[in-house]
Amino acid sequence: MPAAQPTRHPSPPTARQAGALVSHAAGATLAEQLALHLAERIQQRLLAPGARLPSVRDCAQRQGVSPSTVVGAYDLLQARGLVQAQPQRGFFVREVPAAPKPAAGRSSPPPAPVDATALIRSMFQVQGGLPAPGMGTLPESWLDAQVLQRALRRVCADPMAWLSYGEPAGDASLRAAMSRRLADLGVRAEASQIVTTVGATHALDLISRTLLQPGDAVLVDEPGWAVEYARLTRMGMRLLPVPRGPEGPDLAVLAALLREHRPRLYVTVSVLHNPTGASLTPAVAHQVLRLAEAHDLTIVEDDTYSWLAPAHATRLVQLDALQRTVYVTGFSKILTPQWRVGCLAAAPALAERLIDTKLISTLTTPGPLERAVAICLVQGALRRHAERVVTRLQAARQRTVRLVRESGCHFRAEPAGLFGWVDVGVDTEPLAQRLLDEGWLTAPGSLFHAKPRPTSLMRINFATAQDARFWQRLQQLRTSAHT
Amino acid sequence: MPAAQPTRHPSPPTARQAGALVSHAAGATLAEQLALHLAERIQQRLLAPGARLPSVRDCAQRQGVSPSTVVGAYDLLQARGLVQAQPQRGFFVREVPAAPKPAAGRSSPPPAPVDATALIRSMFQVQGGLPAPGMGTLPESWLDAQVLQRALRRVCADPMAWLSYGEPAGDASLRAAMSRRLADLGVRAEASQIVTTVGATHALDLISRTLLQPGDAVLVDEPGWAVEYARLTRMGMRLLPVPRGPEGPDLAVLAALLREHRPRLYVTVSVLHNPTGASLTPAVAHQVLRLAEAHDLTIVEDDTYSWLAPAHATRLVQLDALQRTVYVTGFSKILTPQWRVGCLAAAPALAERLIDTKLISTLTTPGPLERAVAICLVQGALRRHAERVVTRLQAARQRTVRLVRESGCHFRAEPAGLFGWVDVGVDTEPLAQRLLDEGWLTAPGSLFHAKPRPTSLMRINFATAQDARFWQRLQQLRTSAHT
Repeated sequence: MPAAQPTRHPSPPTARQAGALVSHAAGATLAEQLALHLAERIQQRLLAPGARLPSVRDCAQRQGVSPSTVVGAYDLLQARGLVQAQPQRGFFVREVPAAPKPAAGRSSPPPAPVDATALIRSMFQVQGGLPAPGMGTLPESWLDAQVLQRALRRVCADPMAWLSYGEPAGDASLRAAMSRRLADLGVRAEASQIVTTVGATHALDLISRTLLQPGDAVLVDEPGWAVEYARLTRMGMRLLPVPRGPEGPDLAVLAALLREHRPRLYVTVSVLHNPTGASLTPAVAHQVLRLAEAHDLTIVEDDTYSWLAPAHATRLVQLDALQRTVYVTGFSKILTPQWRVGCLAAAPALAERLIDTKLISTLTTPGPLERAVAICLVQGALRRHAERVVTRLQAARQRTVRLVRESGCHFRAEPAGLFGWVDVGVDTEPLAQRLLDEGWLTAPGSLFHAKPRPTSLMRINFATAQDARFWQRLQQLRTSAHT
Repeated sequence: MPAAQPTRHPSPPTARQAGALVSHAAGATLAEQLALHLAERIQQRLLAPGARLPSVRDCAQRQGVSPSTVVGAYDLLQARGLVQAQPQRGFFVREVPAAPKPAAGRSSPPPAPVDATALIRSMFQVQGGLPAPGMGTLPESWLDAQVLQRALRRVCADPMAWLSYGEPAGDASLRAAMSRRLADLGVRAEASQIVTTVGATHALDLISRTLLQPGDAVLVDEPGWAVEYARLTRMGMRLLPVPRGPEGPDLAVLAALLREHRPRLYVTVSVLHNPTGASLTPAVAHQVLRLAEAHDLTIVEDDTYSWLAPAHATRLVQLDALQRTVYVTGFSKILTPQWRVGCLAAAPALAERLIDTKLISTLTTPGPLERAVAICLVQGALRRHAERVVTRLQAARQRTVRLVRESGCHFRAEPAGLFGWVDVGVDTEPLAQRLLDEGWLTAPGSLFHAKPRPTSLMRINFATAQDARFWQRLQQLRTSAHT
């Protein structure tokens, strides 16, 4: 994490880092500390507008403070305008005042689903010492800082390469390296068909902005990735969730949705799908492409987990040769997320249109980091690092699978890749709040649904869910929820 | 520029770099070479779809080849499907086939104005040895590679700072440094009100996406910046150009547009406006804010040229204290454009909404480069570099102003900052094509108008317009156009 700068944030570091919410040793009164903690939750939208605060009794019990302390904290929050009391019902989080206000008679753009924003934001929270079973990336200790440093130092030594604006399509060395990488995956794409982006998210954003108009119907995997849902919803699209099975999308539902809604685009993860870990089979891939052809559908294949799977894994772009498919990938899940390097590959004419959208979005992209990633690719350092990660992940997965099963939970999909899709038998949304209070970040299943709903599923990260204490604590909470 | 990678581009390096288009020494036939050159122009949209190719006679004369060579080249282009012949009228550039085609009965999003895209793309072209009087940034030789290298090496040495995802608002050290920079400009903004972006362009994009809906009316400076026009047009906004005078926007027009169209947003450059170089006066600033208040208008102040002006220059954000103003800046015009580091500052509640938009656009932003820029800011290296640039620019401006006047052109605005707004007395659009053929990149005035139209104005860059040969050549072409 960045070095701590003096911030004017209302929360003292103790409240952020400790597993226990309220430290009796800190300077402020207990009520003030509790109020600060809850205020921070509200600001981070982990307590969403409209949500009810726990009852005074429940909160007192959880925090190990007296009911009068909780009453004091809730009063402080009310005085700050963050919550409001409703007689007989309790305290509720107020809507955040939007500024500037829309003029009378016009509606604001639809907001991102609050829960999705909460998940996304929670992924970036500074955690305490505990591992975060809900996180979406490899732990920092699994990344290879030396490989990245070596590459960045080489780039640094050659400033003429990064003093100018760079090319609209992106750094030429990265695009050439990605052309070769795609050849390894069985996809022929010239460097001129490849456009670099600020991570895979930016690639998905450019594609949506280029191909969609508000009101368009868009097919998405369900369960699927919250940021994609949030963006498409914000852009005014109609989401059409396609159930994702162990072999790929549910073909009958896909066919029915295509007939009924004539969607323009399907955004899907074929290899090591998030959150189930499932990968597309060749037979289903073939059928998906036949349907796409029959209904003039464009498919965006998000290959974010590419390096954690074998090169011969089935990809739609391989079968389709980038005719009606667009390829998206990034390096956040293998090299480092903070560099924000990604790219897309598309048919030549579409690539040109995507570059135009890129120009109005960010002009060009940060060349030095793209060049550094290209060096990692060309010199084989990325491939060797990925092999090490895959081996280590396999061991972590075995250990985690055992812990999951011993704790009485079970997998909804065959464990593979980085993520497991686990049924814990109780609603994971309140469970996640409770666990977060104790310092464990989890990813409740409702966040992977296009329309959030109660579910007993949650996504776990095999690399960060190896701590037996987590599964013991989960078992206790599950048991107490059932009694 | 990035090191040359083997690309499959159709143009041989000779055609790209030489001032003369067609080199008699190259391997291909002259007709093939000319066809390749023109094909490249079409692909770069410097020859826009629908544009007429020069007559065979004109082209032969310009290129120093025989008319039959030109006929051969045009035939090759027609065979490649890039141009089509219209009897009695000549050869015209074909529309680029859009892929994938929109389904029947629905319209595509409005395309970016072709000319704007052409300008934007042309800014990134590899140039020959000649300076580019139309470029939008400082020449590479004016940048301080050592300052940037030192900062990036320090960042490189501390990988724990950039292995994680980073914070959604952006690198904490850059936000803290920008809070202090804004204090120097007389604006009080906490680090929590500052959001980092992929250059100023990304900041402007995030603001548009957060505050606007398709069909909204938006006030823009005219003349103004083509990328801003292109983005707002692509997003379906109605542009309301506000004439930009030497002291700021035309207040009478501004008031009338506010009354008639109730626009939601005004995007403006107050300090060293692009392309005129003019800066807002305190008196006009006060009136602009009074109008904004009366009509509930939000103003986005793009302070891209901040470091080329004194800190005491009048900014709307200073008077308004970020109430109904949003501040945008970047480091492309002073440190290096390819790093793509920028930021915005806004009222607290709006900053939160902008972070949500950032998450769906790029998740986070590239931390290592943000940290490196923060180091340049904190250690005073950026300030000292900016002082040197300002001194050097002053000398360049004096020399260029003399050359402009000697060549018989005159300034439409008092020369200041990086850009001059020059009247050359003949239509600058065909002039720019002609000059580009000879290796001189210029920026014709039509590209700075919301609705492109013939104009005798052009924007020059004081740093790159110091070559007397350019002004001599311009004078020849102007004279021949008049006779």
